Amino acid sequence: MEVRVGGNQYGKAEVRMVAVDREGPRHEFCDLNVGITLSGDLDEVHLSGDNANVVPTDTQKNTVFAFAKEAPVGEIEEFALRLGRHFVASSDPIRRARVHIESAGWQRIAVDGTPHAHAFVKSSDEVRTATAVCEAEAEWVLCGLQNLVVLKTTGSEFSGYIKDRYTTLQETTDRILSTSVTARWRHAGVSGDWPASFEAVRAVMLERFASLNSLSLQQTLYAMAKGAIETRPEIVEVRLSMPNRHHFVVDLEPFGLSNDGEIFRVEDRPYGLIEASILAAGAPAAGPAWDPYPLL
Amino acid sequence: MEVRVGGNQYGKAEVRMVAVDREGPRHEFCDLNVGITLSGDLDEVHLSGDNANVVPTDTQKNTVFAFAKEAPVGEIEEFALRLGRHFVASSDPIRRARVHIESAGWQRIAVDGTPHAHAFVKSSDEVRTATAVCEAEAEWVLCGLQNLVVLKTTGSEFSGYIKDRYTTLQETTDRILSTSVTARWRHAGVSGDWPASFEAVRAVMLERFASLNSLSLQQTLYAMAKGAIETRPEIVEVRLSMPNRHHFVVDLEPFGLSNDGEIFRVEDRPYGLIEASILAAGAPAAGPAWDPYPLL
Amino acid sequence: MEVRVGGNQYGKAEVRMVAVDREGPRHEFCDLNVGITLSGDLDEVHLSGDNANVVPTDTQKNTVFAFAKEAPVGEIEEFALRLGRHFVASSDPIRRARVHIESAGWQRIAVDGTPHAHAFVKSSDEVRTATAVCEAEAEWVLCGLQNLVVLKTTGSEFSGYIKDRYTTLQETTDRILSTSVTARWRHAGVSGDWPASFEAVRAVMLERFASLNSLSLQQTLYAMAKGAIETRPEIVEVRLSMPNRHHFVVDLEPFGLSNDGEIFRVEDRPYGLIEASILAAGAPAAGPAWDPYPLL
Amino acid sequence: MEVRVGGNQYGKAEVRMVAVDREGPRHEFCDLNVGITLSGDLDEVHLSGDNANVVPTDTQKNTVFAFAKEAPVGEIEEFALRLGRHFVASSDPIRRARVHIESAGWQRIAVDGTPHAHAFVKSSDEVRTATAVCEAEAEWVLCGLQNLVVLKTTGSEFSGYIKDRYTTLQETTDRILSTSVTARWRHAGVSGDWPASFEAVRAVMLERFASLNSLSLQQTLYAMAKGAIETRPEIVEVRLSMPNRHHFVVDLEPFGLSNDGEIFRVEDRPYGLIEASILAAGAPAAGPAWDPYPLL
Repeated sequence: MEVRVGGNQYGKAEVRMVAVDREGPRHEFCDLNVGITLSGDLDEVHLSGDNANVVPTDTQKNTVFAFAKEAPVGEIEEFALRLGRHFVASSDPIRRARVHIESAGWQRIAVDGTPHAHAFVKSSDEVRTATAVCEAEAEWVLCGLQNLVVLKTTGSEFSGYIKDRYTTLQETTDRILSTSVTARWRHAGVSGDWPASFEAVRAVMLERFASLNSLSLQQTLYAMAKGAIETRPEIVEVRLSMPNRHHFVVDLEPFGLSNDGEIFRVEDRPYGLIEASILAAGAPAAGPAWDPYPLL
Repeated sequence: MEVRVGGNQYGKAEVRMVAVDREGPRHEFCDLNVGITLSGDLDEVHLSGDNANVVPTDTQKNTVFAFAKEAPVGEIEEFALRLGRHFVASSDPIRRARVHIESAGWQRIAVDGTPHAHAFVKSSDEVRTATAVCEAEAEWVLCGLQNLVVLKTTGSEFSGYIKDRYTTLQETTDRILSTSVTARWRHAGVSGDWPASFEAVRAVMLERFASLNSLSLQQTLYAMAKGAIETRPEIVEVRLSMPNRHHFVVDLEPFGLSNDGEIFRVEDRPYGLIEASILAAGAPAAGPAWDPYPLL
Repeated sequence: MEVRVGGNQYGKAEVRMVAVDREGPRHEFCDLNVGITLSGDLDEVHLSGDNANVVPTDTQKNTVFAFAKEAPVGEIEEFALRLGRHFVASSDPIRRARVHIESAGWQRIAVDGTPHAHAFVKSSDEVRTATAVCEAEAEWVLCGLQNLVVLKTTGSEFSGYIKDRYTTLQETTDRILSTSVTARWRHAGVSGDWPASFEAVRAVMLERFASLNSLSLQQTLYAMAKGAIETRPEIVEVRLSMPNRHHFVVDLEPFGLSNDGEIFRVEDRPYGLIEASILAAGAPAAGPAWDPYPLL
Repeated sequence: MEVRVGGNQYGKAEVRMVAVDREGPRHEFCDLNVGITLSGDLDEVHLSGDNANVVPTDTQKNTVFAFAKEAPVGEIEEFALRLGRHFVASSDPIRRARVHIESAGWQRIAVDGTPHAHAFVKSSDEVRTATAVCEAEAEWVLCGLQNLVVLKTTGSEFSGYIKDRYTTLQETTDRILSTSVTARWRHAGVSGDWPASFEAVRAVMLERFASLNSLSLQQTLYAMAKGAIETRPEIVEVRLSMPNRHHFVVDLEPFGLSNDGEIFRVEDRPYGLIEASILAAGAPAAGPAWDPYPLL
């Protein structure tokens, strides 16, 4: 049986870096988690263990730290592009670099009402993400966020679905809807006002989640993605992954109590999981922007 | 070999409940994780499996849901006391009930600048906690918080420590200090303005963390606890557990770069862990408020 | 801006089920975690919230439980196929079902040297997996495992790699190699002796990991996959994801001690991550077997 | 308001070390997670940040690595005692050291039926633990294990409990009983045949879990602890923490199916939690062996 190497990639995952800007008395800092994935002319390392085409993952890690010193980190999209371009440009066998960055949010601690110069409190476990995919001839940027947890106490229905012999779910015109949003959106280009774009997308997704009377989580997902695309013409595709965090009305009748949508138990597992890609008309082909990440 | 039953306790852990107040168009809700621990005359269930003195943990769970409907949940300290008193009063063999509640924070989603009536976004993974310990003749309340993650980019030193043959750490007058605060504070009584007290304690702990030029994490811990006790006379003891989230200056010399406290790698393990109890002078005895929780 | 729905899928994730076979005094049981993902004619639910084509995820969950009663669960590959075929056959709009099952391993507790009839101890956190992808006209099966954690104390080298200005890693002819294997392998067909095939693949992957003097983790990965394909002709593709769990030699010179590959510190993050698909010559096209799972 | 320092402790947590014995061609290794907690004359570091009495946690970490080289690690109980005695003996202000070690289990990979000389597979996520508590005049050793997950498909009942207005649970004479055992047991002395003692305790706890027809999880807990004390006279106290991993019979009636204890759904939260200390008659006082660990 002959055997061959198919798609493959390797890199350093979860490089945790804090970079402090100490210019002036008022410090700024960024708190990043950087992952790098390289692919290219790498068959031989699989076949014979010849590492001649391999940039060690240790070097990839060093590069993250050195690059953060050689120039200010700046926007995470730009930093991801700088890193990705470097790996493709500096090593011939590397044909594609994917750099994924997660950025944690912090805010200044208030002391006597004044934001402190160098003391911070983590604002949330929500993270902002950026992914740059770089080849010699083409580049792609995906922006995103994860751990954005939202909940509506009403304004959500679910009915009109297929019934079969295994159906027990009751239709409802009023339920809690809650999810933890993971979003990635693809830009048409690789430049722009990244923070403004991010803030606008996040805001409109929250607004659509809140405003839409939801007939299904899919409808909510679509409305959120559509809002992003309509608001920011630089965005050509939005992919969302939204687990349905089920809140069940507790049966209080055994205790002689009514429960008109007031008391809910929250279940961790199982959960619904809704995923979709929503595209702008005429969106350019995605190329390798999404794929093959990950392989499993 | 004769064998006997020593200290013991049992209960239902992690009852996840959302309770919605639907009075009026502007919904309020609380998002709780409730744990109940009972102890008392329970030797026989261990020795022979006789459950005559056992309130099933399933019933404990039901009681949480029913109580949330029978009267508004209100402050988590009050809800914990209501539950704890019930178990001790309603079942003779139960001599002590410990009710621990974690409360997640949410804020309203802004739509066109207006806070929405029934749509929310989780504000943080920080949680507020309350523990009520109830016996027939005495009660205690512990308030607290966890997952309060803070960081200072400067204003932290570490020097003057013991050196021995295993010491390699360099003394420093400028390092990053970061920790995830878990705090519990004991009240002298079991009533008061819980939210005001909580907010004041949280604010002063943050301020002290920010303001103190730290010579050690222990000093910072003490300053935070002292601030709480000085600010709120109803608080007689503060216990803090603070892991030292190490940020190490990356050696950039191999790349011809300096690193004057700018670029840090963050390590998960190992970590320092600092824990202490700080008491107000004349604090009453803690009784079973802290103990034996947990047994291991 | 016109907006359209692209690729999408939905389903119930992490249905945790234990099914006990109580025929005879010697019980058998399986401990499964089942995830279902459906796709098909689902644009309208996104666009308008019309659920007419939606099989609720709650029904999917019910179906798992009911199917486990209607006939013995049997091999997880067969159970995944039964479920997948059902969803495609019973609901016209559903064009493809992906059913993913994780199976936990248990062994009988020995009492006086005899395996007990109905008491078990969990043997490991390693899980066996099966994925069935079903369409009306075609089907695919992926077998696999995850959390298979292995370590070699020697027999691993790393040298001959690209050096650039960010390289500090020293070449080595002797290091610890450790990884947590996630593997999926694609079968040419959808029937066979599943347990025998699984055991043979697992055994040969372990043997190749042990026996090969590794020049790179990629080479080890390839040898493991090649071993599987050569051993079992029914397997046409193997995909592996192998994090490099770094073990670093501790510098003991400051304490006047040598360290000749004896004392290692283990780091959690960052880690190398090696992923590849290895194929049998003439492997049929994978179709949708791997894709689009997940979308992000 | 005067404020004072109460109980306190500090140390390095989760030092991950692998130590390889390379004598001869057949390697042995241990895979440890070491935590150190020191207490003593430490008020001043809290009050003023004076570190004169502080052994840095970085030094504690170094000491773990150096000690593993200076002499073979040997049994984890002995290694914990060596470390604990060192900290108390070498630094006057340190009055008590608690060293806690978790040890992961590995087994040799079989190649052609022969255990390999230097390649291993992790056998389980179960860990063996040892805790040494050292003072100048006294010492204690706690042995233990955690993540020992067990399940019985029958031989478990629950009835005869207190009923009140919040009771809905049905009595049962046949249910699944499953738990993840965390156990710690206190030895009368600080020497002995540690591996033999450990294996005997683990075996008898498993046997009792299997053999007892359980009327409550408390009864099972007691039987397991009693078995350990009766089997090994060197053990004077056993503390167990056992979550009740609920398995609920799925209602299949809506689908026209019976369910006679065959199909169960597994719930993560909430769960019962049973904890107790079981003592040998005449057990010496525990002193600080269990306390104050942790403070919260």
